[in-house]
Formats: sequence, structure tokens, C-alpha cells
Amino acid sequence: MDFKLDQRLEKDTYFIGELTLSRVLLMNVSNFPWAILVPKISGVSELFELDSKQQIVYQNECNYISRHMSEIFGAHKMNVASLGNLVPQLHTHVIARYKDDDAWPKPVWTFQNMLPYSDDDHKLQIDKIRKLIDDYEQGENYARL
Amino acid sequence: MDFKLDQRLEKDTYFIGELTLSRVLLMNVSNFPWAILVPKISGVSELFELDSKQQIVYQNECNYISRHMSEIFGAHKMNVASLGNLVPQLHTHVIARYKDDDAWPKPVWTFQNMLPYSDDDHKLQIDKIRKLIDDYEQGENYARL
Repeated sequence: MDFKLDQRLEKDTYFIGELTLSRVLLMNVSNFPWAILVPKISGVSELFELDSKQQIVYQNECNYISRHMSEIFGAHKMNVASLGNLVPQLHTHVIARYKDDDAWPKPVWTFQNMLPYSDDDHKLQIDKIRKLIDDYEQGENYARL
Repeated sequence: MDFKLDQRLEKDTYFIGELTLSRVLLMNVSNFPWAILVPKISGVSELFELDSKQQIVYQNECNYISRHMSEIFGAHKMNVASLGNLVPQLHTHVIARYKDDDAWPKPVWTFQNMLPYSDDDHKLQIDKIRKLIDDYEQGENYARL
């Protein structure tokens, strides 16, 4: 597989782990619990460019991370979005939002005061999400494909 | 089915048509070709709250609309997002973006100068997307479920 992570994603994130199809990253913004999933397939910019099996696996992985981030972070709402206006490599933001977070109720992307993690804090955050990845089992939708 | 469209979505959009699971709406913002898909299921706020079959059908429908809006509008990028900070009823934005549109490269939601459609223009836009709905056939993923 000749997948290579986009340079901007590389620069803005920490590596957390790998699911079947997705690399899971932590956005280096401490204001919000913010993961990014990137399918490890080169040359894909849009969700509909994944083949039908990849679409299901990728969606399962995004929904799995979203469900469990919602639980472990006690989020009021999850924001799940594939935008890609700045980074053409297909990636999906999975962000835990709170009614009293710094940007609520606006989306996070235009928030002006993003603060990077301190060294210790990013490790704690990575460990929480890595635990989810370790516990991931491919679901029944995958088994059918 | 006791589905009822959220009042704010009702107010901000035009009805385009129905897919198997989704009601398809046109956002009344003429700056961007902007559809919203709402699964016709009551009490669901998060993608992961759909059951596994609904997740696949809903994703198929979102990706179908995204793929064909990309084609008919000649978009440079599609933005696909389920946010729901203001409207808790699960809905997904599918927006055709251009490198010279009014908000590029920012997401559209915080754009300050949203302009409603004129009467004739909204009808033209609805007709384009309704054509996609008329042509929709449930794909192979659905047949397997």
C-alpha cells in the first residue's frame, strides 16, 4: 500500500493508532477532544471515491470512534465531518463537543484561539483513544462483505 | 413512522424529495449548492445511534447525493458533515464547494453573508437535485442487508 499521510495532517496531529482501514490521529488542539481518521488509501479525496466495501468499513470505524469518544469524554454532541478544503487527502474529523466549550455552538474550524497540548496532556489524551483502538473488533457489517 | 422534521430545518430549507431513509432538503442559502439529508427516524441525534442497517443505507444515500452533486455542480470539493450543535435532529450537510466561492477555504457555517434564493432560482436548484432523487436506485449494499 503506497499510502502516505498528508504533510499538513502529519504536522498538526499526533499518531494514535491504526484500525483496519483508518489511521487515527489526535489533532493537536487541546480545546476540544478531536480525532481525525484517514483511510490508508492513496489518491482519494471524497467519501464517494471509496469503493462500496471501503465506504462501509470506513463508516464503521468513524462511527465506532465517535460512539466511544462520546462516552469516554461525556460529550453533549459529536461533530463528524469530511471537509478537505485545505487538505485534499480524505479524512474525517470526529470531535467531542460540549455546550460550554470554547467554540459552542459554532463549528470548531474557524475558532481563533486553538491551543496545542502540553506534553503530558497529549499523552493522556492519546492513551484514552488508543484504548478504544485496542478494543476495536470488526463488526458484523464487515464480516458480511 | 412518527418522524417530524425539526422546526428550524423546516424554516431554513426547501423540500426536495425522499429517498428510502432520508428526506432531502435544499438549504435556503444561494451562495453554495447545499443539500441536507435527514433520516426519517425520530429521536436520533448521532450517526452511531442509527442501527447498522440504517447506517449503511444513510451513508449510501449521503454518498450518492454527494457524488452526483459534485458532478452536476462541477464542485472542486464536497463538504459532508453531521454537526447538530443547533439542531439536535440527526442531519447531514452535503455542500458543493468551489475554490472561488464566498467562504473558501473556510467551512460555510460561520459565513456571515448568506443570501436566500430568489423564487425562480430555488426552483431551478430543487429541480436539479430532484432529478438525482428520481434516478436513485438502492445499491448493492442495501440488497445484501
